[in-house]
Amino acid sequence: MNIVVDAMGGDFAPHEIVKGALKAAQEYKIGITLVGKKEILHLLTAKHKKGLDITIVDSPDVIGDEENPIEAAAKKPNASIPMGIRLVKDGKADGFVSAGSTGAVFFSSYMILGKIEGVDRPAIATIIHLNPTSPFLLIDCGANPNCKPKHLLQFAQMGNVYVREVFSLKSPRIALLNNGEEEKKGNQLSKDTYPILKNSGLNFVGNLEAQFLSRGKADVIVTDGFTGNVVLKTIEGLGDAFLYLRNIGQIFARGESNTDTNEENRSSIWKRLDFQEAGGASLVGLNGNVIISHGRSQAKAIKNAIATAKRAAEHNVVELIKKVDFSEPAEASTGNSES
Amino acid sequence: MNIVVDAMGGDFAPHEIVKGALKAAQEYKIGITLVGKKEILHLLTAKHKKGLDITIVDSPDVIGDEENPIEAAAKKPNASIPMGIRLVKDGKADGFVSAGSTGAVFFSSYMILGKIEGVDRPAIATIIHLNPTSPFLLIDCGANPNCKPKHLLQFAQMGNVYVREVFSLKSPRIALLNNGEEEKKGNQLSKDTYPILKNSGLNFVGNLEAQFLSRGKADVIVTDGFTGNVVLKTIEGLGDAFLYLRNIGQIFARGESNTDTNEENRSSIWKRLDFQEAGGASLVGLNGNVIISHGRSQAKAIKNAIATAKRAAEHNVVELIKKVDFSEPAEASTGNSES
Repeated sequence: MNIVVDAMGGDFAPHEIVKGALKAAQEYKIGITLVGKKEILHLLTAKHKKGLDITIVDSPDVIGDEENPIEAAAKKPNASIPMGIRLVKDGKADGFVSAGSTGAVFFSSYMILGKIEGVDRPAIATIIHLNPTSPFLLIDCGANPNCKPKHLLQFAQMGNVYVREVFSLKSPRIALLNNGEEEKKGNQLSKDTYPILKNSGLNFVGNLEAQFLSRGKADVIVTDGFTGNVVLKTIEGLGDAFLYLRNIGQIFARGESNTDTNEENRSSIWKRLDFQEAGGASLVGLNGNVIISHGRSQAKAIKNAIATAKRAAEHNVVELIKKVDFSEPAEASTGNSES
Repeated sequence: MNIVVDAMGGDFAPHEIVKGALKAAQEYKIGITLVGKKEILHLLTAKHKKGLDITIVDSPDVIGDEENPIEAAAKKPNASIPMGIRLVKDGKADGFVSAGSTGAVFFSSYMILGKIEGVDRPAIATIIHLNPTSPFLLIDCGANPNCKPKHLLQFAQMGNVYVREVFSLKSPRIALLNNGEEEKKGNQLSKDTYPILKNSGLNFVGNLEAQFLSRGKADVIVTDGFTGNVVLKTIEGLGDAFLYLRNIGQIFARGESNTDTNEENRSSIWKRLDFQEAGGASLVGLNGNVIISHGRSQAKAIKNAIATAKRAAEHNVVELIKKVDFSEPAEASTGNSES
């Protein structure tokens, strides 16, 4: 198992990225390939890589967050992002993790790895751990702001495979994010998507309202990339806000600081609010295993994103998504869309 | 000042509704009209109404949550919801509060009060207090799942008046909820709406991503009713989840229970997560002041919703929205849509 890590991407690159990668190599006992400026990477890893399976691949270019991602991905083949993805394409690595420009990772992956046959729109899928006992996969989290029902069906099909394998569930419960529970509720897209999911052969459990996201009612929650992005960022923003308020509270509240160092309590509440604990987002629908980590990722977030890449690789998620029959059902009422 | 309260609506009606209404009458020194089954209401208020301005209006019917709201609103003119709204229509009260069926309140209000001239779509507007120093108004929170850019412009215009008056801001900052900051980002609706808001004459501060909702960057956040509903419910669901986890944490964590009774700490964090602290949602664009309170409202939530109704009445929000010029600008590039 070897996971390639873009050492140059993200607000805390390269230091925190390298730190997280080294931790992952040690903890998960996997090989890590760091792509980036070799001088810096040798310097940062020299003291710590002993006994670990660390490879350094030099990339002379970097794609900045301020660059147009499509242009940059096309014009800088020797930047860390495309170089890392090519290692996956060439079978030299089992996954790629980057905290760099989401757009650049998405377009580079699209161009280098290509779409899986039958998939119209690759999507961004994020595992959300709000519920301690029942995480769920939210798909699409932002790749496709405008969607048609057939795209949402494909997201459901891909999410189904992902969760079935990674969570080891026989028949994942698929729900459609909506503003009401009843079949006829929603905007035009969700109204049109409902019957297609109902007849998809998937274990469709109906509409899910956002207040029940963390209630363990579904394993895959399907939505368009605009809504999914807004939901993901609302959760992230609330996490930030409350972690901030908590810190303020800690300063003013007597005795609070004692409690907050209580690791048991931390893990039961605050960890779920902290995106650094999440494992990044998976690009699904491409011929390769790619994980986008948050731009603000520090070592912990990178280590967790590497864990996500490792799990997807171990469970062969990409190959299994290739086996899905994405052809549109001849009739919505009889369609069984998974082979 | 007299606010009508639907004593029969909501999961905790009539006991909690009456309790909240009595508290509001006492605390805000306003008149309260309770609409509902008079025998029960006399019984519930008998011991507590001394010195308070409480009126009881008998309504023989109730609209249940399970009923079709349009049919029920039409067929039961003597249910508490339509009777209460008629008191507002007839000038006998300054606002109406209900924790009953949102659909029934919306349709009854629509039929009895009518739309303000020029408004295409009445909307649901909710003040969100996540940021201790900078609340914002989210509009639309669910009345209109499918919107056109002109509807979002009207939401912005109505939200502008609401916030200008209620928050006493000279020039509220209006933002468009989007999945990116740049002008060209978003789904088709947000891309098409951006230039219209930019040329609206309003203080449009651009796109706002959902992770910054609580950062005090805007006073009015405009979105379609599908997305707004999902955002509102995501916040509500997270609040529930973390209040639940906190209670679990309290049981297991040593010393935690001491800290949690610390009122200062509670108010700094947990109160912001609790929808009972919020003040309900305002219907805007109708010829009357109507507040929808959460179906799970207990006394505190009802008292807070009455406070919202009182503030809107004091600031004459409905009359001021009537003065807005809702005619579509002849050219988007020169339009100044507020008189």
